[in-house]
Amino acid sequence: MVAQNLARTGGQPTDPYSVGPDAVRLSRSAATLDSPILPQREFAAWFEERRRRHTYQVRRIPFTALDRWGFDPATGNLGHESGRFFTVEGIAVEGGRGPVPGWTQPIIRQPEVGMLGILVKEFDGVLHCLMQFKMEPGNPNLVQLSPTVQATRSNFTRVHRGAPVKYLEYFARPGHRGRVLADVLQSEQGSWFLHKRNRNVVIETTEDVPLDDDYCWLTLGQLRLLLAADELVNMDSRTVLSCLPFAVPPAVGERPAVESMFRQALLRSLAPDAGAEHTMTELLSWITNAKAGSEARVRRIALDDVPDWYRTGTEIAHAGGLHFEVVAVEVEASNREVLRWSQPLLRPVESGVAAFFAARRNGVLHVLVNARAEPGFVDRIELAPTVQCQPGTYAGRSPADRPRYLDQLLAAAPEQVRYRAVHSEEGGRFLNARTTYSVVEVDDSLPAPPDDFRWMTVRQLGDLVRHSGYLDVQARTLLACLHALW
Amino acid sequence: MVAQNLARTGGQPTDPYSVGPDAVRLSRSAATLDSPILPQREFAAWFEERRRRHTYQVRRIPFTALDRWGFDPATGNLGHESGRFFTVEGIAVEGGRGPVPGWTQPIIRQPEVGMLGILVKEFDGVLHCLMQFKMEPGNPNLVQLSPTVQATRSNFTRVHRGAPVKYLEYFARPGHRGRVLADVLQSEQGSWFLHKRNRNVVIETTEDVPLDDDYCWLTLGQLRLLLAADELVNMDSRTVLSCLPFAVPPAVGERPAVESMFRQALLRSLAPDAGAEHTMTELLSWITNAKAGSEARVRRIALDDVPDWYRTGTEIAHAGGLHFEVVAVEVEASNREVLRWSQPLLRPVESGVAAFFAARRNGVLHVLVNARAEPGFVDRIELAPTVQCQPGTYAGRSPADRPRYLDQLLAAAPEQVRYRAVHSEEGGRFLNARTTYSVVEVDDSLPAPPDDFRWMTVRQLGDLVRHSGYLDVQARTLLACLHALW
Repeated sequence: MVAQNLARTGGQPTDPYSVGPDAVRLSRSAATLDSPILPQREFAAWFEERRRRHTYQVRRIPFTALDRWGFDPATGNLGHESGRFFTVEGIAVEGGRGPVPGWTQPIIRQPEVGMLGILVKEFDGVLHCLMQFKMEPGNPNLVQLSPTVQATRSNFTRVHRGAPVKYLEYFARPGHRGRVLADVLQSEQGSWFLHKRNRNVVIETTEDVPLDDDYCWLTLGQLRLLLAADELVNMDSRTVLSCLPFAVPPAVGERPAVESMFRQALLRSLAPDAGAEHTMTELLSWITNAKAGSEARVRRIALDDVPDWYRTGTEIAHAGGLHFEVVAVEVEASNREVLRWSQPLLRPVESGVAAFFAARRNGVLHVLVNARAEPGFVDRIELAPTVQCQPGTYAGRSPADRPRYLDQLLAAAPEQVRYRAVHSEEGGRFLNARTTYSVVEVDDSLPAPPDDFRWMTVRQLGDLVRHSGYLDVQARTLLACLHALW
Repeated sequence: MVAQNLARTGGQPTDPYSVGPDAVRLSRSAATLDSPILPQREFAAWFEERRRRHTYQVRRIPFTALDRWGFDPATGNLGHESGRFFTVEGIAVEGGRGPVPGWTQPIIRQPEVGMLGILVKEFDGVLHCLMQFKMEPGNPNLVQLSPTVQATRSNFTRVHRGAPVKYLEYFARPGHRGRVLADVLQSEQGSWFLHKRNRNVVIETTEDVPLDDDYCWLTLGQLRLLLAADELVNMDSRTVLSCLPFAVPPAVGERPAVESMFRQALLRSLAPDAGAEHTMTELLSWITNAKAGSEARVRRIALDDVPDWYRTGTEIAHAGGLHFEVVAVEVEASNREVLRWSQPLLRPVESGVAAFFAARRNGVLHVLVNARAEPGFVDRIELAPTVQCQPGTYAGRSPADRPRYLDQLLAAAPEQVRYRAVHSEEGGRFLNARTTYSVVEVDDSLPAPPDDFRWMTVRQLGDLVRHSGYLDVQARTLLACLHALW
């Protein structure tokens, strides 16, 4: 009787999430590696031309030189006199397990939900993304490729009294102008931000869109190629791209950089009926177990009450020289909403690494995912790459006290490295925050992982990223990079 | 090219969430309305026999008679001397929109994640659920049918030094003993609990399970029939049942209480490719928009600092006589883990209502879902029934100040009411908290709903309930009741 009724849908019910005409059209765009709109060979020249048109200056200043930012006399918290934008406060983490059950630290608190939006439109039947040439003061190279719109709620409400955000009309109320292809709240760095989330939105329009000087139309395939470059596609672009649904990808030409068996396994990993090591029910149970077992509590405290950190006229820093500093910069720009401003930035004291270990298991590519606790996550645990850390923090520690798989990552042979690029984290909040992102192929000699790790297919990551709070921002960058490899 | 590659999966990729052998087996159990294990006609006698075996006494006591519970002298918060179980504290809600942008209230804070687990096992090829005859002091009729295991974290760690929780070994680490069929963190009443969540788990075992006196095996079909009774299937059972995945249901015998066109539309509403009014992408975008636009902030305050509420020797109550009271009870029981205890309970001052409006749209049953903000939700907004309130709170208010659709619910003609039963909310925390649950069929004359409402299929609710934080506990009860109607 059951079988009889299942037959109504041919026994193969459709996936409510990611298959449908939109996913097919997005996959077609991803398979289109060039475009007559802005040919790939002309992109670099366009980008350089934009760079020449603008002048930017970013220089470190003392905190006292910040305009309308200051330290609260009672708490030492650093904030803007309007009460908007963000504050730098303290948190105390207590009651956790593991080698470091509790600590205190400064953290950026930005409770507003910002908007990261990419506008897409068909040209000659292929979807193109409207990408922005954008300066952010914290980027090492200042300018990178950003989403169409990258707006804090303060931008929306014009707290900074600057020029209106271009193309914002498509995103002010997603779905009211254009069709929604993706729209999900996603977390950002949970070690640096307390409960920060941005709305990741992709809107398709069929209207005529006037093209501003600092914007260009690129296919998803062109963006996949650009993801191979260091420090070009910014964090906000990467996270929005990671939220797009893809159908089983169309065949694309062989890409010589990627070895063929790896690529075949990757293509199989994108299929919804891939031979996954774990069912989605098992994975959801594993995540639930990690959240339910997490006992660490996070409490907001005054920045003045954070021990082991000190403040000078120019920085808030860790006594041991680890982690990060909070500094102040003054910015002059000729193509931002306002021409001159000053703000605090968080400066990591060293570069980070983030890597997925990938293995062909049963012919299907799986990546090794870590259920990770960070104090700034809204719901305790998110899924992180196999390795995600600042390696210098652990210099000189015994192997047992170093992050799992870090040493294997650092020792990986070049032929294991299927993807590697340096990307910047959010240049509007972080100064020179570089992370080396890698996908490293490992073989069956890797022992069974500990319980806070699971092998997952790329498709399973894609099914989860349509919901809030599953993949952390580093895992989302790597998901976008994995899609750049097929 | 795309179409060519889609053809690999027959163009109909499988749903990673809810179709598979388990969902088919669960549907078969749901279609099995009787069982030789405990025949349906013998259930009432079994239940009465259990009731006769036990004696229970619950009586109101003054707060000073509570054993090891007391008011913190600094804050007035009510708590247990161990620091465990739960506390009654205050919250301030600020910055919201709508008719009541801010308020303060007492609330139960129970940060621990509890476990609600149903053990299932096949008998003669049909899955049966191990249900428990259980006394809870707040239930109007004291005893109801509860999940196999209903354990706070304090139970796990034996804070109350009582007897071990029966069958807990299957749930102490879901998946290590038996197979996981569902496992998800779900919220509970966000107006009464601050950030409370329980783990909803269903585990299948193939072991021999010794049957304790206070337990019985029932098919899902038997439970569906029992859901028609008032105050029998407790809240914890209802929420766990709502989390189970179902395939397209098998044909079952006509059920005379349910009119045929309604039932046909309901069956179509369960299919994954049902003609839903909105795609899942559109619904997720709508939810994201509601969360991103929610500006209310919730701040913990001392219970002593909650204005408009007063405390006597026997209750904490609202000056206007609205909402709820906090009271204390002493309990004596012969079959609980401990034989005698005292505790605070939250007593609503009146019964609540919760109802889904249901309509056949394009031949497919849709229910009208409300994106609702409650201060205790972990992430601001969850999906609630069309109507969910205590009606008396709004007596005498102008129509504009009364909850949307409440008057239409109260005026519904008997022939519109497809389901109606009174169920109790969590009897371990709430005293006599009764809610009348209804599914009311409406026709096309209902005007287009306001933006915080959306029509959704039953299948779409089922896809979302596999993840945390989408459906509130009243919507989950009604989802279980909708499944009782096919």
